[in-house]
Amino acid sequence: MISQTLLEVGQQPNGEPAQVPVITVEGAPGGPNVYLQANLHGAEIQGNAVLAAFLELCRAQRPKGTFTLVPMANPIGINQKSGEFTLGRFDPISGENWNRQYHFSNADLDAFCQAHLNSDETTIAAAFRERLRAQIAQRQASPWGLKTGQTMALRLQQLALEADIVLDLHTGPISDRHLYVPEYARARAHHFNIPLNILMPSDFGGALDEAHFSPWWQLSQRFAELGRTLEVLVDAFTLELGPQEHLDPAQAGRDALGIGRYLEVMGCWPEGTHQVEEEIQHACQLADYKALYSPCGGQIEYLAPLGQPVKAGVPVARIWHYERLGQDKPMFTEVSLPCDAIPVLHFASANVQEGTELYKFLTHTFAL
Amino acid sequence: MISQTLLEVGQQPNGEPAQVPVITVEGAPGGPNVYLQANLHGAEIQGNAVLAAFLELCRAQRPKGTFTLVPMANPIGINQKSGEFTLGRFDPISGENWNRQYHFSNADLDAFCQAHLNSDETTIAAAFRERLRAQIAQRQASPWGLKTGQTMALRLQQLALEADIVLDLHTGPISDRHLYVPEYARARAHHFNIPLNILMPSDFGGALDEAHFSPWWQLSQRFAELGRTLEVLVDAFTLELGPQEHLDPAQAGRDALGIGRYLEVMGCWPEGTHQVEEEIQHACQLADYKALYSPCGGQIEYLAPLGQPVKAGVPVARIWHYERLGQDKPMFTEVSLPCDAIPVLHFASANVQEGTELYKFLTHTFAL
Amino acid sequence: MISQTLLEVGQQPNGEPAQVPVITVEGAPGGPNVYLQANLHGAEIQGNAVLAAFLELCRAQRPKGTFTLVPMANPIGINQKSGEFTLGRFDPISGENWNRQYHFSNADLDAFCQAHLNSDETTIAAAFRERLRAQIAQRQASPWGLKTGQTMALRLQQLALEADIVLDLHTGPISDRHLYVPEYARARAHHFNIPLNILMPSDFGGALDEAHFSPWWQLSQRFAELGRTLEVLVDAFTLELGPQEHLDPAQAGRDALGIGRYLEVMGCWPEGTHQVEEEIQHACQLADYKALYSPCGGQIEYLAPLGQPVKAGVPVARIWHYERLGQDKPMFTEVSLPCDAIPVLHFASANVQEGTELYKFLTHTFAL
Amino acid sequence: MISQTLLEVGQQPNGEPAQVPVITVEGAPGGPNVYLQANLHGAEIQGNAVLAAFLELCRAQRPKGTFTLVPMANPIGINQKSGEFTLGRFDPISGENWNRQYHFSNADLDAFCQAHLNSDETTIAAAFRERLRAQIAQRQASPWGLKTGQTMALRLQQLALEADIVLDLHTGPISDRHLYVPEYARARAHHFNIPLNILMPSDFGGALDEAHFSPWWQLSQRFAELGRTLEVLVDAFTLELGPQEHLDPAQAGRDALGIGRYLEVMGCWPEGTHQVEEEIQHACQLADYKALYSPCGGQIEYLAPLGQPVKAGVPVARIWHYERLGQDKPMFTEVSLPCDAIPVLHFASANVQEGTELYKFLTHTFAL
Repeated sequence: MISQTLLEVGQQPNGEPAQVPVITVEGAPGGPNVYLQANLHGAEIQGNAVLAAFLELCRAQRPKGTFTLVPMANPIGINQKSGEFTLGRFDPISGENWNRQYHFSNADLDAFCQAHLNSDETTIAAAFRERLRAQIAQRQASPWGLKTGQTMALRLQQLALEADIVLDLHTGPISDRHLYVPEYARARAHHFNIPLNILMPSDFGGALDEAHFSPWWQLSQRFAELGRTLEVLVDAFTLELGPQEHLDPAQAGRDALGIGRYLEVMGCWPEGTHQVEEEIQHACQLADYKALYSPCGGQIEYLAPLGQPVKAGVPVARIWHYERLGQDKPMFTEVSLPCDAIPVLHFASANVQEGTELYKFLTHTFAL
Repeated sequence: MISQTLLEVGQQPNGEPAQVPVITVEGAPGGPNVYLQANLHGAEIQGNAVLAAFLELCRAQRPKGTFTLVPMANPIGINQKSGEFTLGRFDPISGENWNRQYHFSNADLDAFCQAHLNSDETTIAAAFRERLRAQIAQRQASPWGLKTGQTMALRLQQLALEADIVLDLHTGPISDRHLYVPEYARARAHHFNIPLNILMPSDFGGALDEAHFSPWWQLSQRFAELGRTLEVLVDAFTLELGPQEHLDPAQAGRDALGIGRYLEVMGCWPEGTHQVEEEIQHACQLADYKALYSPCGGQIEYLAPLGQPVKAGVPVARIWHYERLGQDKPMFTEVSLPCDAIPVLHFASANVQEGTELYKFLTHTFAL
Repeated sequence: MISQTLLEVGQQPNGEPAQVPVITVEGAPGGPNVYLQANLHGAEIQGNAVLAAFLELCRAQRPKGTFTLVPMANPIGINQKSGEFTLGRFDPISGENWNRQYHFSNADLDAFCQAHLNSDETTIAAAFRERLRAQIAQRQASPWGLKTGQTMALRLQQLALEADIVLDLHTGPISDRHLYVPEYARARAHHFNIPLNILMPSDFGGALDEAHFSPWWQLSQRFAELGRTLEVLVDAFTLELGPQEHLDPAQAGRDALGIGRYLEVMGCWPEGTHQVEEEIQHACQLADYKALYSPCGGQIEYLAPLGQPVKAGVPVARIWHYERLGQDKPMFTEVSLPCDAIPVLHFASANVQEGTELYKFLTHTFAL
Repeated sequence: MISQTLLEVGQQPNGEPAQVPVITVEGAPGGPNVYLQANLHGAEIQGNAVLAAFLELCRAQRPKGTFTLVPMANPIGINQKSGEFTLGRFDPISGENWNRQYHFSNADLDAFCQAHLNSDETTIAAAFRERLRAQIAQRQASPWGLKTGQTMALRLQQLALEADIVLDLHTGPISDRHLYVPEYARARAHHFNIPLNILMPSDFGGALDEAHFSPWWQLSQRFAELGRTLEVLVDAFTLELGPQEHLDPAQAGRDALGIGRYLEVMGCWPEGTHQVEEEIQHACQLADYKALYSPCGGQIEYLAPLGQPVKAGVPVARIWHYERLGQDKPMFTEVSLPCDAIPVLHFASANVQEGTELYKFLTHTFAL
């Protein structure tokens, strides 16, 4: 029922293949195809522990459906150190974010919709999935080759595109748990039991979740314009499960239960199989998810506790200027917000430049 | 006639301002406003030497117009070392390319064109420039702050947007000299005497040249749609003047002469003031400027001399697999191209991953 | 009474001087000359806050003596980012630890002692200090130049060698507060009120504290061999005041009080001026201060709370192998110690290689 | 006759073993045991090509002896990128040079010599080698583990210590070919045909060549003090075969011939088997091998051609200060030497700090 293979996602300068473990859980028939990936950014370790805990849930009670678990998804990023920390957020050569290199094209979507205006849902799904497969195969066949990050992303995406549900497990820097929710899936997102939520539009920016919800969502939207109703047939979420460079198996267990509960609703287990203590869940629109950049350089004292609402005008950080010691100038600059907000994450270092992203905030929040 | 001030473009963690020298050459009246910038990427040193040689040309014979020279444009990037080399191509925190953070918006272009359909060219230019100033000021006023790279880019852009001509001096990794030419300026680009040329469309991708030609070009295009003829009033080019991490004052002198000769045509000196030995000039469209990515990891022997046409199917690189020493497998992989091409630059290291950008090529070339 | 100047400790590629603030507190006559430095390693920020709090103590009650405070001692290291973190522990070009480049030579110590066998203490101190000055001046005069780190270290050392007391404020990675104590100063070290203490021999390994206690200690030792008693005339300590990349002004205030209390004993204030809540203080010899290296690669869960004794054989870390997910192999490796110990600090990342320094421990401990 | 195995020298965070290919050439009986290693520093690629060419020599004419070839010796360093370049000179976590972590101890040398004062050479060699094996095994058995670099170095050293001849192939940054020669082997070093040579004393500084010649040399010295003559029974050299990040198979072929010619003298082939065009060979003592550090920051133009004598006082570099453009200050600083010298290598970047190692020079040279 549970098996492991290795997927080659690149080759390193010393000839060593960059390999990713791919675990398959063959559940009972009748459930969805679910793809769960973790640790595409090298320092974002916690998702692996969540996958390990989730696998225990599958062992404890056999689910319906097929599950593909991909921990340690980026061997290059995981092994890339710079000082003590893991420099695995972007390709060390090009600076490109590993999670912005998935493929998406809706260039010929109109033609597809016209051709399938009267097809049934199963036919549409099969044809659309075949179109996604062909798009990726075409890119992989480029006689000019592909970038390192694209090579990796496309090989992962080939697995993920077979799924009905795609869950991409990340973490923030110093971060509360938060969830990117495609607007259409809002009603079922609360089952994850993640306190902070960002509602996404159907745009594509290169990330794994978008690479899976955008095509199907835009398909649904285009059909709607043509007068045909088609639900979005794929769910995709990015779960940010705490801080990077940190491993917390106990919290991983709780988050695996949240995933289990969401998957109950999707048909994998009877509802009520997994019990979690409900957390308060805030949400905002992506356009209201705001980064705060430092107005100056200095050494920073973070004042705003993550996950707790903060009022406009109240200092969220004090940036110290120790180079002024013994001078008469103010020793620090305080930073506050133009509106009420909930801090989601903050920068992982206490040493900042002018323009460093200090915090990210939910603003104009509402209950999920 | 020649003066220097310092422009603050950021603040470092230790409180030190990141400062950029700004040299003004007040020429005789009647010439254009010219902005020349160098070394926004930290390892791309050669442009500074070109600016130094260009300043000598101004001293040798007073030009018409006003010149703003900005060498050493990115103090953060220039001072950022990693091993022996200068890690100044992207923000070491975020991975973002320093030359992709300039501002551009044509959201309200229609309204502007409608309002000025019957204005004269001088009025349009003044109003459009004022609009650009206001756009930048508005971004700088954000209560959420700006990224480090945006802060720097916008302060430089505030200087550059006053110019009629913007020249951004870069280099490649290991690179022949090449030039990015906005299509409309093709006829006068050959005066730079740069052997390899890439013709650009009016799109914006974040770079300094685009931030200056795109708005004015799109203005011209929009007016054309409305039946009004307006030339593109600003010229902007990116000059890539050889390899990074290298300083060649003799070649800098020759490239300064090329810039001088182009500026003769733009009214700064009498034509014929600066003599250069004409080089053969190849060009292609941006869409035909192709990167070649490595099909495997290994140690690379670059075979194709830069600037010299190479035929389809002829090996341009041999990637060695020394981990196979003593085995029976082939010791190298040869890489060739699907079409004829001219190599412009290649990667700066002999140690590559699968997907590393090995070369860039002009394809489907023609004479400039 | 309090003034600030800037000390140039190097020059960066863009021509900017690397400058360090030097604050002088002129106390009442009759006290020692005290040198306090912080943040030589770029990520070790907390010492600056301690200096700020200590300056407040000087303002609150004028001390006896002269104090030199040097916060933000390494502008190159402080401004060196790599990903979010500050890569300021070693020179990014050479890999050399910034705190291993101070100067020390006792090549001619015998001759000095013979010459001063009958001098009084004041004469000896003045002559020995003059010898230290001359040694540094001689190195700085090298016609071959000095390394970047040596240039910086020697300019700082020129200030520090004038002092009777040298305090170098550092932090660990994730770390409890600890103190390096030269054996001869053991009796007065407990006034700092730092819970974990390492007793140092008179050897020199390149660090600032050693550069100041080693010469004077070896002087004392050599005189002793010659039958002359001379106390060690200079005290020098390295204080490690918590974790890197972290700023905690409240704890800084408490540690400033501890420094104040130590300086009371050295004559700067009346004893009892500064009150601190006494902490339990453990100590061990430097040879018993042990690093534990990882037996394998993996993702680590740190199990041993810092500062709390742990028994031999009890797991201090669990190293997870998520690449084994879905296989039958054990999912983690547990690491334990061959003897009882007190964990002082652990690695700052949860992602480790075989051989990564996981922890440092006091072993064979005793009360300070 | 030729076979390959893999040696595990570490484990990466993703669980992947760091593996090194080990090629064995079983020659005819009667020759020495020879160990050749390359690419311990990640960017120093050329040695692999030399090993490949050397293997061809072995295939062309079967040598006497046993050869162990270890290309790509440091998988962690080879795969460590930072920007385009390979950051493989030091451990990215600790900053420690990979080639300073081999083991050496002569703590009990006296006892060994006393015990073997009357043993024959073969007995001594076997016992001394057994002692070296035991020393390494003891370190590897530490209950506290070993550093990443030690783990790697000791596993390589276990292979190398079996050899009579150890050749460690490196490169410089931008570098002419040069050779580190233990003084006792001076007479046979010229067979390598390497133009620049540095004569080494018997000290140990952590490098592979020293780890092999120091024990045997000190053994010979100690026996000499006891009145027993014993030649140094092991030869060890570090060959620096050009610039890093560069692959030149043609030059590799010539350097393989030089190695072949040296090994003829050591009994592996009949003398005259390998023909090379003799190069002029300069040498100096290690103490006269001088680094020149930059007196300022700036952009550097290297003036002194590598391998060609330069006179005292003649500029070897011009350091430009482009931040002074438009000011009246001198635009560059020229650097010259206090004595005549031959430049061996220079820094790989044109962008330097105060204190950057600009060049290394042979001084007080003589013919090898």
